[in-house]
Amino acid sequence: MSEFELINQYFKSTTVQRDDVLLGIGDDCAILSPPPGKQLAVSTDTLISGVHFPVNTSAEDIGYKSLAVNLSDLAAMGAEPAWVSLAISLPEADEAWVKAFMKGFNQLALQHNVALVGGDTTRGSLSITVSVTGFVDTAKSLKRGNAKCGDVIFVTGKLGDARLGLESHLGNIQLTDVAREYFLHCLNRPEPRVTIGQILTSYPVAAIDLSDGLLADLNHICKASSTGAVIHLDKIPLSKQLFDIYDSKLNWSMICNAGDDYELCFTCPPDDIDSLLRDLHSQGIEVFPIGEIDDSASVTCYLNGDEYSQLGSGYNHF
Amino acid sequence: MSEFELINQYFKSTTVQRDDVLLGIGDDCAILSPPPGKQLAVSTDTLISGVHFPVNTSAEDIGYKSLAVNLSDLAAMGAEPAWVSLAISLPEADEAWVKAFMKGFNQLALQHNVALVGGDTTRGSLSITVSVTGFVDTAKSLKRGNAKCGDVIFVTGKLGDARLGLESHLGNIQLTDVAREYFLHCLNRPEPRVTIGQILTSYPVAAIDLSDGLLADLNHICKASSTGAVIHLDKIPLSKQLFDIYDSKLNWSMICNAGDDYELCFTCPPDDIDSLLRDLHSQGIEVFPIGEIDDSASVTCYLNGDEYSQLGSGYNHF
Repeated sequence: MSEFELINQYFKSTTVQRDDVLLGIGDDCAILSPPPGKQLAVSTDTLISGVHFPVNTSAEDIGYKSLAVNLSDLAAMGAEPAWVSLAISLPEADEAWVKAFMKGFNQLALQHNVALVGGDTTRGSLSITVSVTGFVDTAKSLKRGNAKCGDVIFVTGKLGDARLGLESHLGNIQLTDVAREYFLHCLNRPEPRVTIGQILTSYPVAAIDLSDGLLADLNHICKASSTGAVIHLDKIPLSKQLFDIYDSKLNWSMICNAGDDYELCFTCPPDDIDSLLRDLHSQGIEVFPIGEIDDSASVTCYLNGDEYSQLGSGYNHF
Repeated sequence: MSEFELINQYFKSTTVQRDDVLLGIGDDCAILSPPPGKQLAVSTDTLISGVHFPVNTSAEDIGYKSLAVNLSDLAAMGAEPAWVSLAISLPEADEAWVKAFMKGFNQLALQHNVALVGGDTTRGSLSITVSVTGFVDTAKSLKRGNAKCGDVIFVTGKLGDARLGLESHLGNIQLTDVAREYFLHCLNRPEPRVTIGQILTSYPVAAIDLSDGLLADLNHICKASSTGAVIHLDKIPLSKQLFDIYDSKLNWSMICNAGDDYELCFTCPPDDIDSLLRDLHSQGIEVFPIGEIDDSASVTCYLNGDEYSQLGSGYNHF
């Protein structure tokens, strides 16, 4: 099967239709019509086999996740997803693989009304680069530099589960079938917090998505905002399944430095919290306060009131 | 050097500044402000080491070419270049390589006023994915389906030279140093025909950029326009250097199926040609008529009046 047949058969035919896609896959460029008065939020992420997902991850999971991690970046900016480009390198033109990949990709694309508008397929070692575009009001975007001293720090869900999925996949920990399935789902099917991001745009918050670990990513907020932060480890939301594994002796370094959570971490001024929580609860969304922004120059962690300093500082792709 | 230091040191500091980039590299997303009343043209291309450029191509040439091939797609749509995202996979975080890559990339970015607004750097086999966005009026974009029976077919420059550069680089042909340098320049430093593309938008033309060879790419125009075409091989512009090698026995299959020319191929109704040529000549631009669109279902080649059928059908990335 040729490159062109692959593109036509799976990419063009299966994508979401949007009125603002004036010309989709198949010409030299896509032609897109941005909505008047909005700005564009654009994010690009590459996923490499063996680095960003284990070598034997299913094509369907890779397809889902390659879009999910990009939508997570849009969520962290409070943007409404619209268009996506997809560049895939494959060792061979494997029809079954592409079909399964697009099944996972389109499942999430449909859910968020994102149209696939272009891309490239090439022969090479397995690698996926996704570039996603969303709409945002600049004044309302959730920039990392928005945090202020006294703001409360929240996360949108449980941390560490995706990392346990990776450890299980790699055979580093032995789990029951039920637990293994739970953690692998957390690893392979993160839910980008797009709705939460859009609700946050009504408030003066800083936000980031947790791709490299809580400490590393919170550090980016602190650096961009010229602040420090305090984290209360005992307030971090954790799954019952994770508690079951550690039998009450939690591995805080893993939890705080685990990549792939794809929850949002955001800050909110104390005066806005009641209103924000009302807005979130009305959509059935729970978020979790885990600390405060302060005027120090670093992120300090506490466990049950005592400083806890035995933590590294996040995942490094190099 | 970490991923973040790489990004900050070379990517962020060296890029072109544009007023419509409200937030550049360094947050979860870039924030971009599209001009009112314009549409966006978006193109994505992946370049893989050993597939799209020889393994031992210099980093500077790879940087130049990875942007050039994307700008060539914008040129083929008549769009004005604006923003670019860059995803690089590298076997190791090699500072000298990134510096040289960005030198070549920025040379062309500066020339076309394109701002680097985001991307990703990952560890993996050498691969570059570039996604470029330009501005265009939809009604004036140079869609492939615009060709009509009777239109004259033009190309914007000499064909086949880049392929001879590749053959020379691979050691398949022996050349004088001067000839080798000429052909390697054609291979590594194609000039995207952005200005020509924008001039063409005033006329009802179909256009495509020649990345996969004249026959394959002209076939895309014919297919999208439901037409056929006639090519007069003897009218294809060729370099003196290419003539010198073939000693008057030209390899038409190579010339018509060579990839990497990055000239534009476009069609123009006979009544518009005088006006179009005046516009082009006023900018010092020459273009070359090589055939006509007809109502057949295929592309037929003639050499000095006789049908010439010993040609393949273009380069296939798979």
